[in-house]
Amino acid sequence: MDSDVVIIGQGPAGLQAAIHASRKKINVTVLGKSENSALYKAEIENYFGIKSVNGKELLDIGQEQAKNFGASIIDEDVIQLTKEGDGFKIITETDRVIRSKAIILAMGISRVKLNIPGEKDFLGKGVSYCASCDAGFFRDRPVAVIGEESEAAESAILLSEYASKVYWIHRELKVTSQMLNRVDNSKVEMISGDPVKITGENSVTGLELRDGRHLEIQGIFIALGAKGSMELALEIGLLPDPSGKINVNEDCRTEMEMVYACGDVTGSPWQLARAVGQGAVAGDNASRAVRKGKIDGSRE
Amino acid sequence: MDSDVVIIGQGPAGLQAAIHASRKKINVTVLGKSENSALYKAEIENYFGIKSVNGKELLDIGQEQAKNFGASIIDEDVIQLTKEGDGFKIITETDRVIRSKAIILAMGISRVKLNIPGEKDFLGKGVSYCASCDAGFFRDRPVAVIGEESEAAESAILLSEYASKVYWIHRELKVTSQMLNRVDNSKVEMISGDPVKITGENSVTGLELRDGRHLEIQGIFIALGAKGSMELALEIGLLPDPSGKINVNEDCRTEMEMVYACGDVTGSPWQLARAVGQGAVAGDNASRAVRKGKIDGSRE
Repeated sequence: MDSDVVIIGQGPAGLQAAIHASRKKINVTVLGKSENSALYKAEIENYFGIKSVNGKELLDIGQEQAKNFGASIIDEDVIQLTKEGDGFKIITETDRVIRSKAIILAMGISRVKLNIPGEKDFLGKGVSYCASCDAGFFRDRPVAVIGEESEAAESAILLSEYASKVYWIHRELKVTSQMLNRVDNSKVEMISGDPVKITGENSVTGLELRDGRHLEIQGIFIALGAKGSMELALEIGLLPDPSGKINVNEDCRTEMEMVYACGDVTGSPWQLARAVGQGAVAGDNASRAVRKGKIDGSRE
Repeated sequence: MDSDVVIIGQGPAGLQAAIHASRKKINVTVLGKSENSALYKAEIENYFGIKSVNGKELLDIGQEQAKNFGASIIDEDVIQLTKEGDGFKIITETDRVIRSKAIILAMGISRVKLNIPGEKDFLGKGVSYCASCDAGFFRDRPVAVIGEESEAAESAILLSEYASKVYWIHRELKVTSQMLNRVDNSKVEMISGDPVKITGENSVTGLELRDGRHLEIQGIFIALGAKGSMELALEIGLLPDPSGKINVNEDCRTEMEMVYACGDVTGSPWQLARAVGQGAVAGDNASRAVRKGKIDGSRE
């Protein structure tokens, strides 16, 4: 099948891009799975215009909006992306082949996991990968931050403004002394250790370390960085920058003609509002570029 | 009174910035009037996660969210903004004086008005200043576009994909022939003329021209450009670029230390989603800059 614009990723950035890219004469296909979005299991209170909502609900509505605006939604992951002539060829996990004139990369990032028992089960129930998203949910409650680098330090600093107590657990610290100076020592306790198990019933109540210590906490913030699903970008020759993000200009265009990117793949802050903002811009511009190409082409 | 961060503007960008800037140890004040926001009279269907809503409702909820996150909201316009030492001094219309460490400019832009009868009354009821926002509401209905430059051409091109008929009304065209080539002549009729009155009962039904012609239309898109409320920016020595927008980097910081900007003042597309996205980024970074300053200061 052919599509004018193919969007890879069904998170908020990809769906907002679909809403803005869809036009009467432009056809738009969205690929991916919304349950892979970081939003899927999140509770959201800081998105303008909605007091409180869970991520799955937002994604369901977003899918419906994209369909109403005319986008086709196919819940399949992309396994191959290649340049072909002036356009792109996309192959999905069921070997479906789609050709498109423009691509929007919106596949998000994967947070690096601890891979310990409880981590998956308590996601959204005390386990978080984003202090700036979720700190507000832990007012006056004890939490732990896991990580060694500046993301962990920033998380500990921010959480100390909300939580009653912050245990910052690490093996070997890799942060500047300037940054360490900003940590509020009355709230933050540094612990050298190795988390082995997250405990709780309906939500997190504790964290076990390898040396047998047990910390009573209600939130655990895993700040080990993120890796993008960058293989697809690499396949068309688009190199992420050294920090692992895809660079875009203010039109959300990458360095490559007809390739746009939006949302977490373009870097932090990993915020819902930022993702939809970029989605709107990427969708708008990708669709404009395709329309322009169509008309220029038809006059040749 | 003193505030760490003062946000000028109570539209979606300013309120989202307030949500993201507010922290336990940072105080945030939002100034301005939400009824001056372009969103106030808009109907919204293209904002991720909300199927259909009117702008006033979104703004009311946004205000409540900002307050819940700890921001102070003062419904007063700013009449003077000056640099004072390392910070800023703001004077409102009631002569209230506020001092702040950081400023977020989110006062939006004013669309240039036609200033003819009916224009104000039918705003949101057929009268629009943003084709890319509202084109979808005019499927298979006749509309008019007013304007001479590329914004008008882009509006006519986009509207021709939705509307049954597009009258493009102008006095003297100032667009490239390349752009004119992209206009679909089967749909778009160029009319040299001068609009004098918008007619209708509950919504727009017609447009009268000075030479007596009457066009039956249901939508009228005024594409005469926009002027920013740039006086405040100029007062602190911040110059808009030649196109009239305030330039920001990817952190939404302007060229001036501790001055951030977000939303329509930073340029097009004038989209709700883009405004909240930039608001989140500006709020996050302004608050981070103030926190950093506080800690550095206290160690000196």
